Amino acid sequence: MAEKWVYLFGGGTAEGSAEMRDLLGGKGANLAEMARLGLPVPPGMTITTEVCAYFSRTGGKYPDGLEEQVAAGMARLEELMGKKFGDPENPLLVSVRSGARVSMPGMMDTVLNLGLNDQTVEGLAKVSGDRRFAFDAYRRFVAMYGDVVLGMKPLTKTERDPFEVLLEKKKEERQVADDTELSAEDLADLVKQFKALVLERTGKPFPEDPQEQLWGAIAAVFRSWDNPRAIEYRRMYHIPSEWGTAVNVQCMVFGNLGEDCATGVAFTRNPATGEPHIFGEYLVNAQGEDVVAGIRTPQPISVAQKDPAKPEQKALEEVMPELYRELLDVAHKLEQHYRDMQDLEFTIERKKLFLLQTRNGKRTGLAAIRIATDMVDEKLIDEKTAITRIEADAMEHLLAPIFSPDELRRAESEGKLLATGLPAGPGAATGKVVFHADDAKRLAAEGEDVILVRVETSPEDVGGMEAARGIVTARGGMTSHAALVARQRGKPCVVGAGALVIDYEAGEMRVGDRVVKAGEWISLDGTTGKVYVGRMEPYPSEVVEVLVRGTKKPEDSDIARRYIRVLEWADRFRRLGVRTNADTPEQSAEAVALGAEGIGLTRTEHMFFGGNRITSVRKMILADDEAGRKEALAELLPMQREDFAGIFRAMNGRPVTIRTLDPPLHEFLPHDEEGIAKLAAELGVPEEKLAAKVEQLAEANPMLGHRGCRLGLVYPEITAMQARAIFEAACDVAAEGVPVKPEVMIPLVAHREELARQRKIVEEVAGQVFAEKGRKVDYLVGTMIELPRAALTADRIAEVADFFSFGTNDLTQTTLGLSRDDAGKFLPFYIESGILDADPFQTLDIDGVGQLLRMGTEKGRQTRPDLKVGICGEHGGDPRSIAFAHEVGLDYVSCSPRRVPVARVAAAQAALADQK
Amino acid sequence: MAEKWVYLFGGGTAEGSAEMRDLLGGKGANLAEMARLGLPVPPGMTITTEVCAYFSRTGGKYPDGLEEQVAAGMARLEELMGKKFGDPENPLLVSVRSGARVSMPGMMDTVLNLGLNDQTVEGLAKVSGDRRFAFDAYRRFVAMYGDVVLGMKPLTKTERDPFEVLLEKKKEERQVADDTELSAEDLADLVKQFKALVLERTGKPFPEDPQEQLWGAIAAVFRSWDNPRAIEYRRMYHIPSEWGTAVNVQCMVFGNLGEDCATGVAFTRNPATGEPHIFGEYLVNAQGEDVVAGIRTPQPISVAQKDPAKPEQKALEEVMPELYRELLDVAHKLEQHYRDMQDLEFTIERKKLFLLQTRNGKRTGLAAIRIATDMVDEKLIDEKTAITRIEADAMEHLLAPIFSPDELRRAESEGKLLATGLPAGPGAATGKVVFHADDAKRLAAEGEDVILVRVETSPEDVGGMEAARGIVTARGGMTSHAALVARQRGKPCVVGAGALVIDYEAGEMRVGDRVVKAGEWISLDGTTGKVYVGRMEPYPSEVVEVLVRGTKKPEDSDIARRYIRVLEWADRFRRLGVRTNADTPEQSAEAVALGAEGIGLTRTEHMFFGGNRITSVRKMILADDEAGRKEALAELLPMQREDFAGIFRAMNGRPVTIRTLDPPLHEFLPHDEEGIAKLAAELGVPEEKLAAKVEQLAEANPMLGHRGCRLGLVYPEITAMQARAIFEAACDVAAEGVPVKPEVMIPLVAHREELARQRKIVEEVAGQVFAEKGRKVDYLVGTMIELPRAALTADRIAEVADFFSFGTNDLTQTTLGLSRDDAGKFLPFYIESGILDADPFQTLDIDGVGQLLRMGTEKGRQTRPDLKVGICGEHGGDPRSIAFAHEVGLDYVSCSPRRVPVARVAAAQAALADQK
Repeated sequence: MAEKWVYLFGGGTAEGSAEMRDLLGGKGANLAEMARLGLPVPPGMTITTEVCAYFSRTGGKYPDGLEEQVAAGMARLEELMGKKFGDPENPLLVSVRSGARVSMPGMMDTVLNLGLNDQTVEGLAKVSGDRRFAFDAYRRFVAMYGDVVLGMKPLTKTERDPFEVLLEKKKEERQVADDTELSAEDLADLVKQFKALVLERTGKPFPEDPQEQLWGAIAAVFRSWDNPRAIEYRRMYHIPSEWGTAVNVQCMVFGNLGEDCATGVAFTRNPATGEPHIFGEYLVNAQGEDVVAGIRTPQPISVAQKDPAKPEQKALEEVMPELYRELLDVAHKLEQHYRDMQDLEFTIERKKLFLLQTRNGKRTGLAAIRIATDMVDEKLIDEKTAITRIEADAMEHLLAPIFSPDELRRAESEGKLLATGLPAGPGAATGKVVFHADDAKRLAAEGEDVILVRVETSPEDVGGMEAARGIVTARGGMTSHAALVARQRGKPCVVGAGALVIDYEAGEMRVGDRVVKAGEWISLDGTTGKVYVGRMEPYPSEVVEVLVRGTKKPEDSDIARRYIRVLEWADRFRRLGVRTNADTPEQSAEAVALGAEGIGLTRTEHMFFGGNRITSVRKMILADDEAGRKEALAELLPMQREDFAGIFRAMNGRPVTIRTLDPPLHEFLPHDEEGIAKLAAELGVPEEKLAAKVEQLAEANPMLGHRGCRLGLVYPEITAMQARAIFEAACDVAAEGVPVKPEVMIPLVAHREELARQRKIVEEVAGQVFAEKGRKVDYLVGTMIELPRAALTADRIAEVADFFSFGTNDLTQTTLGLSRDDAGKFLPFYIESGILDADPFQTLDIDGVGQLLRMGTEKGRQTRPDLKVGICGEHGGDPRSIAFAHEVGLDYVSCSPRRVPVARVAAAQAALADQK
Repeated sequence: MAEKWVYLFGGGTAEGSAEMRDLLGGKGANLAEMARLGLPVPPGMTITTEVCAYFSRTGGKYPDGLEEQVAAGMARLEELMGKKFGDPENPLLVSVRSGARVSMPGMMDTVLNLGLNDQTVEGLAKVSGDRRFAFDAYRRFVAMYGDVVLGMKPLTKTERDPFEVLLEKKKEERQVADDTELSAEDLADLVKQFKALVLERTGKPFPEDPQEQLWGAIAAVFRSWDNPRAIEYRRMYHIPSEWGTAVNVQCMVFGNLGEDCATGVAFTRNPATGEPHIFGEYLVNAQGEDVVAGIRTPQPISVAQKDPAKPEQKALEEVMPELYRELLDVAHKLEQHYRDMQDLEFTIERKKLFLLQTRNGKRTGLAAIRIATDMVDEKLIDEKTAITRIEADAMEHLLAPIFSPDELRRAESEGKLLATGLPAGPGAATGKVVFHADDAKRLAAEGEDVILVRVETSPEDVGGMEAARGIVTARGGMTSHAALVARQRGKPCVVGAGALVIDYEAGEMRVGDRVVKAGEWISLDGTTGKVYVGRMEPYPSEVVEVLVRGTKKPEDSDIARRYIRVLEWADRFRRLGVRTNADTPEQSAEAVALGAEGIGLTRTEHMFFGGNRITSVRKMILADDEAGRKEALAELLPMQREDFAGIFRAMNGRPVTIRTLDPPLHEFLPHDEEGIAKLAAELGVPEEKLAAKVEQLAEANPMLGHRGCRLGLVYPEITAMQARAIFEAACDVAAEGVPVKPEVMIPLVAHREELARQRKIVEEVAGQVFAEKGRKVDYLVGTMIELPRAALTADRIAEVADFFSFGTNDLTQTTLGLSRDDAGKFLPFYIESGILDADPFQTLDIDGVGQLLRMGTEKGRQTRPDLKVGICGEHGGDPRSIAFAHEVGLDYVSCSPRRVPVARVAAAQAALADQK
């Protein structure tokens, strides 16, 4: 006996089930499952993925027994439907669709209305009582078949779909605007023209034989598995070519046979808010594609869903109340069965409801949290499952202020969209345009709301960015300076809005003819990357009001209560620790409120820009000798000490990892003539001398230059000052009764010896301070692993390190030889054209950088099994990267304060995936 | 019975031998060996390295039996010398010296004249008949003992040796200039002062007991093994601390007891020229340190060695003819025994010759080649041994023009030394100073010899560098642009001569008050890094005249014949292939003449600067669209084709690896206002547009920017043009009957997909060209492995690569996060302070980058076992790196033409080391 290649479904039963996704594909498995549940599914059959594999392996052959099993299946469909395939009187029509194990959008070829020919179309006309309908179905079939099966694509890039061209010509002839205005005769003529075109292009007549049509469509779907587009897609998403696609052959049902017909889509719960009520759209007397095409306006499914401002709306609940109730029933059954919110497609053919598809529905972050918590309360799912249902990124989106959807819609319809860039910092903001950080600080101090707009930002702009409500840049990517600072500060931010032409001198920016001057209002939505002219009112996140600001109580916010619950569950399941990257007491406090268990990275250089500290920093840089440097460092000492003390207090005993000075010194100096002149005057040094120093410090590749521990080695007094500030602060705060746990982190180590020498300085200073203060505090000394050599020689480095923290930003730059600041010139092209799957600065390059992470961790722990290992690059807040961090066995991830909830959820998801 | 800790030598026999170096140290083993050979060695004993290990392990204890064995040894020495240790009448004096398995210069502590005290000094005076001699020996002993054993170092950095201070004071008192003018009484008084100082500083009187002195000295030597200086030295040279040092206690002999005494050093062959005659210096009535101290002028050993211009010289051969013959005999015996040129120390005490040391002698490259070939002819050594005797770098030094040693001495004595930098390109050159590449080209075209002096060079200067006789830069390291180009072009070059203050506007350079103007003559020695004012005549290398230029016949040059012989031997033994990095037919021809078996790297961008090509290149860069770029590329096509054709002809069937465009496009544009204005006028484009383009292309980190294959991916037409030029040239040259073997190399690949796409373009173009030309040529497509990610994912990349070539320059930059252009600010400090052993841009960082090399090779060959793998960075010409390349199993190394002979010898040495 031949193997089983074909699985039937329909008539209240099915040979397959939802579990058989590998064999039947996602679509086929769900159709079978619905049939099993007794739901009204048009009968059909699924040809398995194994047939695809055979077909692919043998260069287009079918296994023994397939033909017979398909024939038997068709006979069964004929029996169930009381129609016959190819019957000129009452023809059975089928659809043929692909359906792989995982959804592969854009690869899915579909042929509808298969079985029509010059004879059967007459039967369809008769049975339906609608000749126009029949010929409309016929011309659609011929065009689809021509495209999908016969490969009649446009011949050149500029040519349009050849069938579409004929249709347009016909509408011109008839002087009508809409397809629906063409008559049955027009359509019959079009079918003739289509067939003539097929003959001309392929050299063969269009196949009239339904059997030939059927096998042609099946072969086309199987062949499509190995077309270049599909191969490319599989490569990108790591889908094995052995998987293959299934083919679903299903009886056609029609929603366009009259006023007692309809077609629609529905979610079992509201996908925007998560409210537990059906939500969707439908059209009377229409086909599926009409709902999305936008020619007619779809109507709401339920009465509750109606817009009070639109009394003309007619809900399905009103028009076909019985069918509505039937749909509700189906929705409930499916949710109970799949234990998740479902996204359905249905068709009503002459008062009979048919389900064409069900799948788990996509939803907003807000809805995901609501649905997950509701379903736990409904005992549909357990808490572990609930956690896996929430996209971790949603946890950050819920912290951002937002514009109301209505306001956004209005702004767009009024043409207020100015430019679109990358959504670098989520949230909404509105304010007056300023082009300089100083202006931002000044106006903000006067109580103005301002948006800082720059070509790109630099560390000198940080004060202005802090003062602004939001930030817009014309250049830069998701990990540009502006983006990094914005996310860390929780500022709405749009970067790389390339359409903006910014003219600092004129104090204006332009997009085409439109000019926005400094002082005019703009609004930006950092969640979508859009910038609008005019003032729009954002309203704050309830979660922030409750968790961070304490301006609202949990009992007054449903969403905040749910948010807290989700985080509590996440904490129960995760293994990875979650820390934060924070440079101030305020950021530290916010991160703690959001659940941070420590600081993974404090960048001391960010403190160098505050107030008039920069003057002391510059004095140090310009000093001619060690004595001069020490004098300037002595000015910085009390300020750094105060910074650290504030952070220690805010963290209240949680570990605080402080990185010693990292950036090259020239970053602290002005580079333009004007700035140099100003600074020279300020410091009372000759302009030429200052210019010479700036020139001398300039670097061809600052990223690979004199920075990180290389500074602390050449100028050990800098490390010593910072260590002193850390330990004095630690002792002082400990004396207040607040526990402290400092961890000193040395950046950019490539050789064991570098760390050994810096460690020695830190230990010496610690000893001195403890003796002076008569008090000891426990501390660790460790290093960033951010150069390939550090990971490669981690066994040696671990000899002198108490902990490692992977600086994945720089590790990515060096491993890939890719400057974050410059990659904007080609990285977008790389991603668009599929050379790369993702931006390696957002999602860890697991195949490359990931190897070094694994190697560094393993080698480090070979030497020191208790070595604490974390990650503190941007990737520390990226869910895919967090999953990898979990897999490699890191101790913690560290991310910006607002991503702490994301990391908690992602860490839990990684742990749960691990349990499976 | 206790273990044997002490090995005696002397009296025509020895307990140890040269084989026992591990146990007795190098010095002890050779002393034993000489004694065995019956050579006149002052008797002595060696305390083994095992005692050192015991001493070190137990914190300063000695093993059982040592004391007895030392006592027995001293008794034997007394017996042999007929003197007694501590005997006031006829005292035995000894020296105590360290001596490890390998030479550790600077760590070697020595105490001479041990055994002297207030009694024995009188005995010595009596026996020697020279009271002044006796007290001079005594004061030297007290000072040495105070320093080495009692640790009486200067107390502060500025303080001088405290004993030296007293000596100076005494000389002032006596109003004499020279130590030798002090009387016995003066010296006796000094001994008292020294002892008083010892008491004051150490709180203890100076030990008068010779036994106490002896054990004090032995302990001091053992202790010195674990002093910080020695630990640091061992760490740097990877010497295990378990090895320990031996201690040699040897009877003193004196060369300063009268006119029948002498002391000297001698080489068994001339260490400068290799001539097979004894060569050395000696002084009558002197101590060893007097020969080196330079107070008296040493005399030549042989009559042949005398300077005809100095009739006052008196050779040992004349003064003590019998002892000279005895010395000749000893030298011959040692050479026959050690089968290598020896470096001896001897003392003649009252007409009796003593050997104090022998070791293999250091020699110049020239001498090494002469000695090695002579010794093969003398059947002293075989050819394999001969190869190991030549420092591979010497093969390059012999290609350089040189100044005569006399001329150099004269120039230095006349104060003509202007500045010293790094020896970046070996050889001598003289010419008129020019500060601009254009001037260099113009004046050279007029027949002038010029030296190009720049702060640093850039690709735009290459034409001027080519035209100049030599190059000097004020900035930059051994792998700066100037250094790389100079070595590839075989130009003498000094870089990083920091003392030079170059003023382009004034057309002059200054060092302090000395000013050198454009047009004045300077001379430079690129082998030593020195720059002189004035004109000095270099004379050309005979090897180049014979091998490269053919201006001299082999039969007219002894050294060229020997050079060729050595290379022939090397080729017999090596496994690694040797290719060259060459960009022109001339360089290719030179490399072939020097033995290159192919080209490992042709940098196509170097061709972009020639003639008016740069104009077409700039047109391409400034084009607004693909069509504009293609037009400009079409102009470049015939020029590139001609370049490649010339190289194919020169290489005559050897493989030619051509790298597609690598540097970022902004390197081809001017960056200063003036240059931009000039170019804008030239191209007829608005200055603002050009400035904007320059600004737009600017990069924060060009090293990690839009370069390498990233250019060819975004602008596939560039790769296509280059591929077309390569294949058209290949077909044309093949049509001439010259075999061709092109290998297309894609740079800066990090992802398999990058190479796959570039490969596709190359293959498509190849197919087109072959069809057009009606002719096919075999070719390969491969990639540089120069990013860590490429090495980490080499298994994937090898799927689409026919070969790998490690670009170790860039791989070092990215793996270490170290910009070659910027490292000058801290790398010298790193090397000086021992953080790094060597400049990683000169010698491969085996612990870090080496791991990636090994990984890349292994992973690549996992996928494709026949993958050809080479190395084409600067390291391809570095002997230590070549040894590693051999170890990893690479197929070839590629280096600049003049280093091809170096690589051939180094590859042979690696293979021979492997056989052991």
